[in-house]
Amino acid sequence: MTFPPEIYDTTLRDGAQGAGVSFSPSAAARLVRALDEFGVDYIEGVLPSSPAHAEAFYAPLRALPLRHAVLAAFGATCHVGAQASSDPGLLALLAAQTPVVTLFGKASRFHVDRILQTTPDENLRIVSDSVSFLRHSSRDVFFDAEHFFDGFAADPDYALAVLDAAAAAGASRLVLCDTNGGSLPSDVSAAVAAVRARFPSLPVGIHAHNDSSLAVAVSLAARSAGATHFQGSLNGIGERVGNTDLCSLLPLLALKLGDPLACAPSLPSLRSLSRLLDELLDRRPDPSRPFVGDHAFTHKAGMHADAVAKIPSSFEHIDPAAVGNTRHIPVSALSGRDNVRAKTSELGVAPPPSDPELESILRQIKWMEADGYQFETADASFRLLIEKAMGRHVPFFELRSFHVGVVKSDASSPPSTIATVKVAVNGREELGAGEGAGPVDALNSALRLVLRRFYPALDAVVLQDYHVRILDPETATRAVTRVVIESTDGTHTWGTVGVSPNIIEASWQALVDSFEYKLLLDARSRAASPS
Amino acid sequence: MTFPPEIYDTTLRDGAQGAGVSFSPSAAARLVRALDEFGVDYIEGVLPSSPAHAEAFYAPLRALPLRHAVLAAFGATCHVGAQASSDPGLLALLAAQTPVVTLFGKASRFHVDRILQTTPDENLRIVSDSVSFLRHSSRDVFFDAEHFFDGFAADPDYALAVLDAAAAAGASRLVLCDTNGGSLPSDVSAAVAAVRARFPSLPVGIHAHNDSSLAVAVSLAARSAGATHFQGSLNGIGERVGNTDLCSLLPLLALKLGDPLACAPSLPSLRSLSRLLDELLDRRPDPSRPFVGDHAFTHKAGMHADAVAKIPSSFEHIDPAAVGNTRHIPVSALSGRDNVRAKTSELGVAPPPSDPELESILRQIKWMEADGYQFETADASFRLLIEKAMGRHVPFFELRSFHVGVVKSDASSPPSTIATVKVAVNGREELGAGEGAGPVDALNSALRLVLRRFYPALDAVVLQDYHVRILDPETATRAVTRVVIESTDGTHTWGTVGVSPNIIEASWQALVDSFEYKLLLDARSRAASPS
Repeated sequence: MTFPPEIYDTTLRDGAQGAGVSFSPSAAARLVRALDEFGVDYIEGVLPSSPAHAEAFYAPLRALPLRHAVLAAFGATCHVGAQASSDPGLLALLAAQTPVVTLFGKASRFHVDRILQTTPDENLRIVSDSVSFLRHSSRDVFFDAEHFFDGFAADPDYALAVLDAAAAAGASRLVLCDTNGGSLPSDVSAAVAAVRARFPSLPVGIHAHNDSSLAVAVSLAARSAGATHFQGSLNGIGERVGNTDLCSLLPLLALKLGDPLACAPSLPSLRSLSRLLDELLDRRPDPSRPFVGDHAFTHKAGMHADAVAKIPSSFEHIDPAAVGNTRHIPVSALSGRDNVRAKTSELGVAPPPSDPELESILRQIKWMEADGYQFETADASFRLLIEKAMGRHVPFFELRSFHVGVVKSDASSPPSTIATVKVAVNGREELGAGEGAGPVDALNSALRLVLRRFYPALDAVVLQDYHVRILDPETATRAVTRVVIESTDGTHTWGTVGVSPNIIEASWQALVDSFEYKLLLDARSRAASPS
Repeated sequence: MTFPPEIYDTTLRDGAQGAGVSFSPSAAARLVRALDEFGVDYIEGVLPSSPAHAEAFYAPLRALPLRHAVLAAFGATCHVGAQASSDPGLLALLAAQTPVVTLFGKASRFHVDRILQTTPDENLRIVSDSVSFLRHSSRDVFFDAEHFFDGFAADPDYALAVLDAAAAAGASRLVLCDTNGGSLPSDVSAAVAAVRARFPSLPVGIHAHNDSSLAVAVSLAARSAGATHFQGSLNGIGERVGNTDLCSLLPLLALKLGDPLACAPSLPSLRSLSRLLDELLDRRPDPSRPFVGDHAFTHKAGMHADAVAKIPSSFEHIDPAAVGNTRHIPVSALSGRDNVRAKTSELGVAPPPSDPELESILRQIKWMEADGYQFETADASFRLLIEKAMGRHVPFFELRSFHVGVVKSDASSPPSTIATVKVAVNGREELGAGEGAGPVDALNSALRLVLRRFYPALDAVVLQDYHVRILDPETATRAVTRVVIESTDGTHTWGTVGVSPNIIEASWQALVDSFEYKLLLDARSRAASPS
């Protein structure tokens, strides 16, 4: 018997077991709506500690107008020696009032003996009674066989006997868990094949952890042995190093293996879904995440960049747009004129530079890179460089002088920091002072104070990221410093860079570029809009 | 024929193709020394653009006293229509003077036709002539078959013909590359098996990319089909989303599959090696990295934490110590106390702290870690913390005040920086001033000037490494900054740390700890030596 593939999301449950992860009720609701919209088949919520907890967590989610996804509550089988019908955990699961309950039970003799400290038969009784009890309350029961693969390796008969008990009691899915994340794909496919052979009329699932960097591979191995139910989380968050990353598994299943997933048509919004999770958790997106990360289609090697410009598939395993991502050629890969031309058109520089201008831009990039500049994360500084090299840039303000003083007047209190800045705008000199948590913060305050008089639009600019990189740390406190600042005005986000042996000077350069870029953006958009 | 497994590191080459990655010459040398020390078999360097570039990059590495690792230069086969013996790329590779040259050539008809735009026969001639030329110069040639798996899928005969050409010309390794990272483990094992069958007397290698989250799995699939040469990078850095992560692959091969790797005895320092790379790149270590990340053995779920406290293997697939990692149970004082005891004995603190002292040290560490301190690379600050918590430390000098002024008097010249420092030694106050390339350099000069009068031994202290990490970059210029300084007196090397929203204050703390530690070291060694 074959079954359609189904995707079961555990971001809110196993995902929330990741260090530092927690979801507010509104974040949980927003995530459930997004997962449903995307086309995930099942969405698992928390393990309720009591009926009241179940009601508080699940009631708002049940009230959402879901178009496709089914909610699943998650919890343990009843306690050793306890009646299923009066077990507090199972009663809390019923109180969740979800169509599906996913029940986890031990499938490993070792765990039954040493952790549960009960008999093998009592564990079978626990599984059987717990599943039966929920079935009698009309719940669809998915059985998560905890430690299945380790259990199967050590005592296959007992691991299968646990599944027998769950199946006989009415479980509709047998989900095999690699709880400790230590199983290899070859072990998993052999075990899944054995389970499929024994339960031909039940869909078999896989729940993997990434402790061996193999969660996605283990899920694929289970699939090729006949598993059709796939558990995972967005961005792979979860206990320890996390679960199977759905952001990798879904495109593999749908795009490479052609599985008819309900969510397949939504794949072009996969990157947005991944970003939503980062946003809800207030995390910086991992640029190296396969498929959805900023670098997934970034071609830094010059040869790759050249080839991709001719034929994208030469160095791309899928079309980036298929998962909502975009190709990116960093400035460092700009080996030739064609690439600079590609970059300037990406940046919307119009009219595009002429050939001699391209040469001059290339020369300048090379000088600056030799000094330690890097434009990969500093598109705005790169844009300004081009405008300057083409003689098009009229600075919005000019520095006359600055002074930063850091005074620590006794050992026990923090230092005070004050900056003064003198700039000229249209020939008019203005002086401003600012205080800050540190020298760069003080400079930022002082500069804003002065420029605000001329350019109130700068009030909208927020510096949202500040990175310092010591380029030759072995020269210690004399080392050259590169500062990268990321700024936003709410609509656009841009990066700027500064380099100097003096960290204050490097920060100043990046700060000035950020404000210059914002003013350039505004001037260009005013010029472009109909008057 | 079977071959011993070999590990080939490409951190400096494919790793450096990762966005934002670059290595200074001293960082490259430090990494090569560490990789050699660890027991990696081959270390690949950059693709040299000219003989001068090859000399500049490889000469300092050749001069290192490597105990085991062999250096490999990396480059392309000769150009279409060119003589191998006069090809600038191959001449640059010879100039690298490495025992091994790893040569990449196209193994895909599609790439030959569309990217090289030449005939299949000319590509075979290119591969054959290039390998022969290097063999005649007594280089051991490893052949990286670029796009091998995509090429094999589309036209297996041609992909194998390319390997034939390389093997007949004398290549000693056939390394199959999943250049675009799109191959599935099942495809890879079939292709590797075909290659092994055709070349029974040549070791076959695998070079994978993680675009499908499968780099480690693909490497294992290649191994089970007979590959014995494994390429990868530390922390999986590399082009796009990166390469096979050696920090996962090595423990899988050595600990789970029992492969006799030369580096197997070094696995307990795997985490340190991973950290070193992050430090050289000024990157925040990824806590979710399998095996070596902070969360790899962090048990957040209460049930897991309880079980692990009884029996570690219940929720751990390997012993964390086997890869230099440690178990972490959030909010558990027990594991902390053992750690501190282990650490103080490692630092040679005598007499060791009593139980109440341990409690007090532990409390202080927790406060400081919550503030952003980290002692992993700051043993000296940790030692001072312990001495202070145990009431044993008498400061060698006390800060009264400091002032740092950075003055930029016109836009085109670099700012000037002057610091003044007032400290008291044995109640006597002294004032000193210093100038520097930046504010920290100026503080360093001023402080040395004052302390030298009392402690001439400080003249021997050289600051050899200075790192800045922004802890919460999203708060931009108000972010908390952690500074780590590595110092040496020629005999000992020590790390110190400072944390503050003000980078000057954070640097000051690390600077003071460095000098205090040197004076403590000297005082203890005087006390220990016979008078």
